[in-house]
Amino acid sequence: MKALRPERQRRSEYKRIMAMTTRLRDNDAYGHMNNAVYGEYFDTAVNQTLIEARVLDLVASPAIGLVVQSFAHFFEAVTCPGRVDVGVRVAYIGRSSVSYEFAMFRDSEELAAAQGGFTHVYVNRETRRPVELPGPMRDVLTELAAPATIRV
Amino acid sequence: MKALRPERQRRSEYKRIMAMTTRLRDNDAYGHMNNAVYGEYFDTAVNQTLIEARVLDLVASPAIGLVVQSFAHFFEAVTCPGRVDVGVRVAYIGRSSVSYEFAMFRDSEELAAAQGGFTHVYVNRETRRPVELPGPMRDVLTELAAPATIRV
Amino acid sequence: MKALRPERQRRSEYKRIMAMTTRLRDNDAYGHMNNAVYGEYFDTAVNQTLIEARVLDLVASPAIGLVVQSFAHFFEAVTCPGRVDVGVRVAYIGRSSVSYEFAMFRDSEELAAAQGGFTHVYVNRETRRPVELPGPMRDVLTELAAPATIRV
Amino acid sequence: MKALRPERQRRSEYKRIMAMTTRLRDNDAYGHMNNAVYGEYFDTAVNQTLIEARVLDLVASPAIGLVVQSFAHFFEAVTCPGRVDVGVRVAYIGRSSVSYEFAMFRDSEELAAAQGGFTHVYVNRETRRPVELPGPMRDVLTELAAPATIRV
Repeated sequence: MKALRPERQRRSEYKRIMAMTTRLRDNDAYGHMNNAVYGEYFDTAVNQTLIEARVLDLVASPAIGLVVQSFAHFFEAVTCPGRVDVGVRVAYIGRSSVSYEFAMFRDSEELAAAQGGFTHVYVNRETRRPVELPGPMRDVLTELAAPATIRV
Repeated sequence: MKALRPERQRRSEYKRIMAMTTRLRDNDAYGHMNNAVYGEYFDTAVNQTLIEARVLDLVASPAIGLVVQSFAHFFEAVTCPGRVDVGVRVAYIGRSSVSYEFAMFRDSEELAAAQGGFTHVYVNRETRRPVELPGPMRDVLTELAAPATIRV
Repeated sequence: MKALRPERQRRSEYKRIMAMTTRLRDNDAYGHMNNAVYGEYFDTAVNQTLIEARVLDLVASPAIGLVVQSFAHFFEAVTCPGRVDVGVRVAYIGRSSVSYEFAMFRDSEELAAAQGGFTHVYVNRETRRPVELPGPMRDVLTELAAPATIRV
Repeated sequence: MKALRPERQRRSEYKRIMAMTTRLRDNDAYGHMNNAVYGEYFDTAVNQTLIEARVLDLVASPAIGLVVQSFAHFFEAVTCPGRVDVGVRVAYIGRSSVSYEFAMFRDSEELAAAQGGFTHVYVNRETRRPVELPGPMRDVLTELAAPATIRV
């Protein structure tokens, strides 16, 4: 069961790159960003993108995205202090779900130090039953779609 | 690209179950544990198990485990306040790597609310080059091995 | 400016003690709980107490508590793995505010490893203007009041 | 016991201002930065400053700073997404301790949304006994000293 290691991605493969600052608390006992922390960056990348595009309101939107699965691959250690760039793109747009892919780049490096992804299923805030992706959101997601994105 | 959803696992499939307490900060804007938080529980489960078994010392062990990949599936919302039980087991033992699987159970529920896994590669603390799993650690991991665990 | 160090408190000085589990991510580079983490325990102690007493609903309560000030003193290092006990008591009950005091105890130790406090001002969830403490909440707070608690 | 509210400070009162990015997980159930999170920003401001000035090495420095007390005042809600600016200055330099003061500013605002402080006592990494502030560190701290800083 040799771990399957994906190719390390490049900055140019991401339409949107967001600069984020590391925090001392990101570092673990070995002096590097703890694996459990990367999700905070990826989750921020998606939600900040949607909020800034005005297609998501965390408090008021009737449709909310719940993460149903996630994964990550770690290639190089990231350390605080230091800025990182987080790339985000859309890999799949379904009727009520969307899958994102992420990459974290150190400083001016071209190859990802880590990459991952997660899938949001949109549900009604009250009933928690799946709903269709809202139209304006679908437009924003389409903008973020990588060339190979599957759309339903 | 229908997301492949694994079977929800049962408590009896985990040799070791650890009770952990939730924190208010685990909750996101929607009132449930944020997907980025589960990794803190899983990471704690592994390291606490190894530390308590005296086969890992975060400060002094010459061989340290670096997470190279991780994944998670989320089935049911978990909320603070509330205790959770985290199951941990070993799915693969290699020469210098070990893959763990986790499940998070709510209260007295039998089926996992979330489950996931990650792979540790052991490296020399200084050189960061892969090393063989230390013998005493291998013994502890073998104890945690699920029936179907692959051993190299 | 010699730092004024308060007396380390005892378990018996707290009416309510809540067992909580540490997480690997609590540890900083020096192998001990980072000072920025203690607030997660204290915040959980208050909110969990109010939620379990059914006088606070994070999503629906019309009156919500905003922290306006906080402080902490650190006496002894706390380390993950290890359970802690968090003591919580009420030191002041005003018209629209309440001040809590906390202590964190290691294992079976009698003296606090850390202690602190914070003040909640209750405001209307929509207008964010101060409101009176709801009656049922005031009853719960009175139960948690230390002998020297000031009540308005 | 009317809570004593300090004056809200201005950007010009801080010699060093560091831009930091917020994370979705900073937000609590009420949609604003949880009080327990601010310490992550303040702790980062101090350590990043010392590391970048090459007077602190988290892994190797023989003298390490332990936080013995902290406090914070919260004036205005901070929300993710949004960048913040964190001001840091030195208020007291002792033989083996240093007290910092912090302020968090939203966007282009002039008055602090929150401010606080903490005291580091420097100890030997092994023995954990107090040691004198290393000379080069004292020089950096002196640069960060506010006009009214007390020096011993």
